[in-house]
Amino acid sequence: MTTGENHIGNQRSSKGNKTYTTHNPKLNIENEQFFTEATSEEINQAVDLASEAFKTFSKKSGQEKATFLRAIADEILAMGDELIAIYQSETGLPEGRAKGERGRTIGQLTSFAAMLEEGSWLDATIDTADLDRAPIPKQDIRKMMVPLGPVVVFGASNFPFAYSTAGGDTASALAAGCPVICKSHPMHAGTSEMVSEAIIRAAQKTNMPNGVFSNLNSSGIEVGIELVTHPGVKAVGFTGSIKGGRALYDIAAQREEPIPVFAEMGSVNPVVLLPNAAEYRGEALAKTYAGSITLGTGQFCTKPGLILGIKSESLTQFIDSLSSEIVKVEPSCMLHPHIIGNYEKNKQIALEQDGLTVHADYQNEVAANHARQAIVTVEGETFLNNTTLHQEVFGPFSMVVVCNDATELENVINHLEGQLTGTILGENEELQNYTTVVDALQNRVGRIIFNGVPTGVEVCPAMLHGGPYPSSTDSRFTAVGIHAVNRWVRPFSYQSWPNELLPNELKDENPLGITRFVNGQNSKDKI
Amino acid sequence: MTTGENHIGNQRSSKGNKTYTTHNPKLNIENEQFFTEATSEEINQAVDLASEAFKTFSKKSGQEKATFLRAIADEILAMGDELIAIYQSETGLPEGRAKGERGRTIGQLTSFAAMLEEGSWLDATIDTADLDRAPIPKQDIRKMMVPLGPVVVFGASNFPFAYSTAGGDTASALAAGCPVICKSHPMHAGTSEMVSEAIIRAAQKTNMPNGVFSNLNSSGIEVGIELVTHPGVKAVGFTGSIKGGRALYDIAAQREEPIPVFAEMGSVNPVVLLPNAAEYRGEALAKTYAGSITLGTGQFCTKPGLILGIKSESLTQFIDSLSSEIVKVEPSCMLHPHIIGNYEKNKQIALEQDGLTVHADYQNEVAANHARQAIVTVEGETFLNNTTLHQEVFGPFSMVVVCNDATELENVINHLEGQLTGTILGENEELQNYTTVVDALQNRVGRIIFNGVPTGVEVCPAMLHGGPYPSSTDSRFTAVGIHAVNRWVRPFSYQSWPNELLPNELKDENPLGITRFVNGQNSKDKI
Repeated sequence: MTTGENHIGNQRSSKGNKTYTTHNPKLNIENEQFFTEATSEEINQAVDLASEAFKTFSKKSGQEKATFLRAIADEILAMGDELIAIYQSETGLPEGRAKGERGRTIGQLTSFAAMLEEGSWLDATIDTADLDRAPIPKQDIRKMMVPLGPVVVFGASNFPFAYSTAGGDTASALAAGCPVICKSHPMHAGTSEMVSEAIIRAAQKTNMPNGVFSNLNSSGIEVGIELVTHPGVKAVGFTGSIKGGRALYDIAAQREEPIPVFAEMGSVNPVVLLPNAAEYRGEALAKTYAGSITLGTGQFCTKPGLILGIKSESLTQFIDSLSSEIVKVEPSCMLHPHIIGNYEKNKQIALEQDGLTVHADYQNEVAANHARQAIVTVEGETFLNNTTLHQEVFGPFSMVVVCNDATELENVINHLEGQLTGTILGENEELQNYTTVVDALQNRVGRIIFNGVPTGVEVCPAMLHGGPYPSSTDSRFTAVGIHAVNRWVRPFSYQSWPNELLPNELKDENPLGITRFVNGQNSKDKI
Repeated sequence: MTTGENHIGNQRSSKGNKTYTTHNPKLNIENEQFFTEATSEEINQAVDLASEAFKTFSKKSGQEKATFLRAIADEILAMGDELIAIYQSETGLPEGRAKGERGRTIGQLTSFAAMLEEGSWLDATIDTADLDRAPIPKQDIRKMMVPLGPVVVFGASNFPFAYSTAGGDTASALAAGCPVICKSHPMHAGTSEMVSEAIIRAAQKTNMPNGVFSNLNSSGIEVGIELVTHPGVKAVGFTGSIKGGRALYDIAAQREEPIPVFAEMGSVNPVVLLPNAAEYRGEALAKTYAGSITLGTGQFCTKPGLILGIKSESLTQFIDSLSSEIVKVEPSCMLHPHIIGNYEKNKQIALEQDGLTVHADYQNEVAANHARQAIVTVEGETFLNNTTLHQEVFGPFSMVVVCNDATELENVINHLEGQLTGTILGENEELQNYTTVVDALQNRVGRIIFNGVPTGVEVCPAMLHGGPYPSSTDSRFTAVGIHAVNRWVRPFSYQSWPNELLPNELKDENPLGITRFVNGQNSKDKI
């Protein structure tokens, strides 16, 4: 059940007079619930509560925070089909996807809980004293990670569960010990409200301070800007467009006290199809890629939007196969009329560029908000000379760049902007002929894949979801996997601090039994 | 021997027509060597060479880079007394300090070499495949740190060896696999040139690519701005003033591709003197602090510039002792006429503020460029209402804030900007009465010290040298200790990558024998 109100800590609040509704793209109707946009007063209340909550929440033990995260997972599951139904009504996504994404979200929450219970994420580092050292005695110094302070999380349009209210940004920030203020995504305000209710219930049941979580409704950009400029906010997580992410980054950088913004933004996810792979496996790869390009109606940040190959008969056949396979896929519903509107507009802009050939463009009648997939091709030189072709078209669209040779292919890669992923499709034995191509691709991406598809971002410690700008605002961090917590913490050193007053992680006795880096060696021992 | 030229990779170059000299503050004369400022052409050459060098340098093994760093240390030592003499002629610092700082610099280089040889800094993380997993097979994913690209290092005025040409920023960037372009500090251009020569010799002897290191002369801000705006530059290290660091941060944030700037800037390093410590140990602490405030003529970024106490007879006695001790210290030479000029100006601005009482102000005749130390006091409320008093006075100056009670003291801490360090001087048993004071201080600093002095930044893994803004531009990183390398690297994931093509760090066989995080457990085993 939703009320359309904001969550300011444990209280519901709706002081504003600006309201909006969400849209059911499958039925192509507005949903009934009106949501009340947060006012400046409510924004300030949420940040003030978060700052106050930080004083106690930042001191909660790993075990206490783990219990909180597991309780959130339980409360989300306890909402059962009602939550799945509202998710579907606000996204048009099928039930299987809704449940799968919920499972992923639960998995993320429990993986951060497990990380907290295990303890080594804190990078506890101890250098013991040597007071007899000449000429200057060596003091005892101990370091561990501490949370930054209140974090603002912007919900993503395309993952209402996994990258929004209780998604990876929120889970990692709470794991770090940072209170979270979620700026709810307007396209799924009801889903966000219900998930917020789950988080608040979990916070109350596990004795977390009031203000550890708030959820603010917002249909425009004002609430987000007020949050990012608020002096009480210490970091920002965002998943969305380059324009949106860069705007937040700029605002944060211009503050009197600049704060980090981790924005995971656009990517065309280049795929390099090497000649032997095109020759030996072109048809199978075409089928696989028709599926990857249209997965979730092409609304994944890792959708392969750019395929680079070298002119050959096999490449031509691959393009034909890909084109014929992709039009076999049943068109599906995009998330919102605005999103399909942008898709049609951006696809059209691409199609109108000189030198582009359309190989597939689904032409049959489709239901409202359903996207027509398309495959286009372009010569390497044309691509190099027109940066409009380098931009992401969010939706089931991909472009094959036909290069004259490996040199041109490498040149194309070197002229791409930073990307989340890059993929090499090749036979093992031909890889050695393309080492500079592989090197060039590595230099532009955060994750490189061999003979696979970039869609499907496994949640595991070795995952890097991020990459050089503009795929993210800071390539030094990941948005997926337990290391996502590193965005919200800073190292802190205690010098000559009394053992009994040190946090448990750094005490001589090592009461938590965690792995620590002691005098240059990993150790679980007591000091 | 110096020539006044720039090092553009392995070549010397002096195409410009703008020259400048350095100053001997002790003799109060200009040194003879003219240095030629780098031109735009030379800046572009250095960055292009660095970008080219990155292709091979980024692939050097840890062992190769360690050999390079150790060779730099050897070449610096081989320069012997000539290097010490030029250092002294450009800083006015005594021989003992010059040699001590050289030792620290050598220690930094070798500690990064040891880190490279040990290998666990790369955070090698492996999640092996489970292709039978339902519904989606789990792919093999492996992650490790890779270098960002060419790094620009700005030499610091106050540490010509340890935080300049071959200092912590350069050593950590080279360890990461990033070529370095040093913007030489104009006050010690000769020292920088000689150290650059040592680096270049080491690079040549150990087969590092041309362009792995360049050194550019610059007397103004133009060279630095051109470097930070150059698209080939991927990160920046800076140690200096808040004004300078913030300007570079702003320029970098406004680039089309923003890049990280790690600037270690100003700090007043608050010290809290608790009542029992003042009562039992006030006189001893006064002696210790007179030494810490005047160490290196107060030109350390961790100089204690602010002492906070609670009004009492003991505090008055501490202030009297500190004042009488500090004027016993023989005045010493500051680094440059500009620096002592700023010291005298900023001290005067402080002294002219309403409500300030001067307790010590050295009045005897001093030699040219020698600084007169001073101790002033102010009431808590006056301090709170005048943010001019919160600013760093770089030099042998410190301010004691006399608070009415613990609440006011905590309030003062909460109104301070971010700091590198905070210190608590107290008896163990009284700490429990001041937990909120300690918490407040922790929240404002990067390192907290118990019953010690903030000066003396130990080079060890547990050290955090950095802190909340404006003590640094990003509290999530340190400028000292092996973890300083984290500023210049990004995590990178390989998915389903052929074992034989993986870097050694991630190969099944673990040929380097490093500790890796494999399927959620630390392990040195083969896969």
